[in-house]
Amino acid sequence: MEEYDIIIVGAGPAGMSAAINAKARNKSVAIFEGGQVAKKIDWAPHVNNYLGFSNVSGPELAQAYIKHIEDLEVPIIKQKVVKAFPMGEKFMVTTNGENYQAKKLILALGVIQQARLKGEEEYIGKGVSYCATCDGMLYKGKDVMVISDSAHHEEEANFLADICENVYYVAQYKEIENLDERIQVVEGKVEEITGEDMANKVKLTTGEYDVACVFILRETVPPTEIVDGLELASKKYIKVNRNLETNVPGVYAAGDCTGEPLQISKATGEGQVAALNAVKEIGK
Amino acid sequence: MEEYDIIIVGAGPAGMSAAINAKARNKSVAIFEGGQVAKKIDWAPHVNNYLGFSNVSGPELAQAYIKHIEDLEVPIIKQKVVKAFPMGEKFMVTTNGENYQAKKLILALGVIQQARLKGEEEYIGKGVSYCATCDGMLYKGKDVMVISDSAHHEEEANFLADICENVYYVAQYKEIENLDERIQVVEGKVEEITGEDMANKVKLTTGEYDVACVFILRETVPPTEIVDGLELASKKYIKVNRNLETNVPGVYAAGDCTGEPLQISKATGEGQVAALNAVKEIGK
Repeated sequence: MEEYDIIIVGAGPAGMSAAINAKARNKSVAIFEGGQVAKKIDWAPHVNNYLGFSNVSGPELAQAYIKHIEDLEVPIIKQKVVKAFPMGEKFMVTTNGENYQAKKLILALGVIQQARLKGEEEYIGKGVSYCATCDGMLYKGKDVMVISDSAHHEEEANFLADICENVYYVAQYKEIENLDERIQVVEGKVEEITGEDMANKVKLTTGEYDVACVFILRETVPPTEIVDGLELASKKYIKVNRNLETNVPGVYAAGDCTGEPLQISKATGEGQVAALNAVKEIGK
Repeated sequence: MEEYDIIIVGAGPAGMSAAINAKARNKSVAIFEGGQVAKKIDWAPHVNNYLGFSNVSGPELAQAYIKHIEDLEVPIIKQKVVKAFPMGEKFMVTTNGENYQAKKLILALGVIQQARLKGEEEYIGKGVSYCATCDGMLYKGKDVMVISDSAHHEEEANFLADICENVYYVAQYKEIENLDERIQVVEGKVEEITGEDMANKVKLTTGEYDVACVFILRETVPPTEIVDGLELASKKYIKVNRNLETNVPGVYAAGDCTGEPLQISKATGEGQVAALNAVKEIGK
């Protein structure tokens, strides 16, 4: 199993700044990113408040950031982190596919995703899952539904086609790209996930589906699902102190996920502080 | 009297980042700096942990920062801020020469200077002064001493030559550049400032001097002198919360002066957060 001193979840400015700082202190580090690197910056027409880049375009700034990461040879592992368990002094980090180990964890998730479908939160771990590759085998031969917000998740959904009886797929995006033919695309919007002790039904605007599990695939998993017991502030942000420590020992957070202002310099600054504090703790 | 929405004290990365962010929100802003702009960065051989600038030299990075400030036409006022008094909803900001008004104040002082000569703290305002141009007239016709850590302060000391009887000058630096001939340069190191209710004697390694006032001229004034009642943390840093607010309403702090790590990204991030919070408060 691959092991790093520090695993960083998210390749926005906070995660990238954390990475170059950890690297500058000679720590082994990897960034995990399921979606596009530096996406939000890449989409910005102009950025004029990141000191040193006067009136730069978003894509230009994103390129400068990516070049920095590449120059320092920081690996970006294109997998979505689904879970991180503390194991003694270390963390076991599970993606949709692999396991890794790290001494410290930095969450740089961007604006955090929370449970937001009706019934979703109630049934997390009870028929609602955020990882098809992790939990798919539990539903062998059964009917399941995948609710997905991006074509990025189609490959993960395809994994279920080999295992489950019927796989229903609700695409919350425009164009389906590469879905297994055995998967049945379902139109309509999700109204509610219902059930008894376990979720067993999804109500769509177009009809109801009885399923044994609902896989909700989004670019990021709610942070409270990744790290058990993680404390939030105002339900919207990860609670941190001035050292960017969360309430869970060994877990730091940086950038938009820790709160406003949702800005680049704030994110890079926090990434740096989180990384340097993590490095300091590793050295103890 | 010139008035700004936000006055920023210090032209390091925190102050410059605060300035471009306030400017981006259409606020009037000025940076006050008694010494060299971006000095600490300019002195660094290499910087490799400010995201976007891969393996840049300190002077190159400093130039990029200064260009950004110039592009946005942020004025840098080359005066040392000595005092900032709250006046109702505003602050009166006094430099060694002029008065200005501001709605909000951001302290970006770098590593903060504190009283550090024996007797200095005890006699602040009682025969110890940090501003010759402010307080010089109080000692007309009397003997005074100037203790200075830089040739930058010689002009301020020269002001005293016209007013005081004897001006003794202790240079805590190598080469005196442009001191008035009437000022008497004194060799030796300061051992102690002593007195009764008021300071009246300076003990040097080379002898004792009876004076009515000791002017201690350093690049920055202790922040607790600039802003009355400012709370420090561990005596070394300005105490701030996650919004970069100090305990004094309307006064923010950012960068090295708020604590470790003493790093550029941390400083620019804090400058941004301080500025955006100040802007938000002004808008209320």
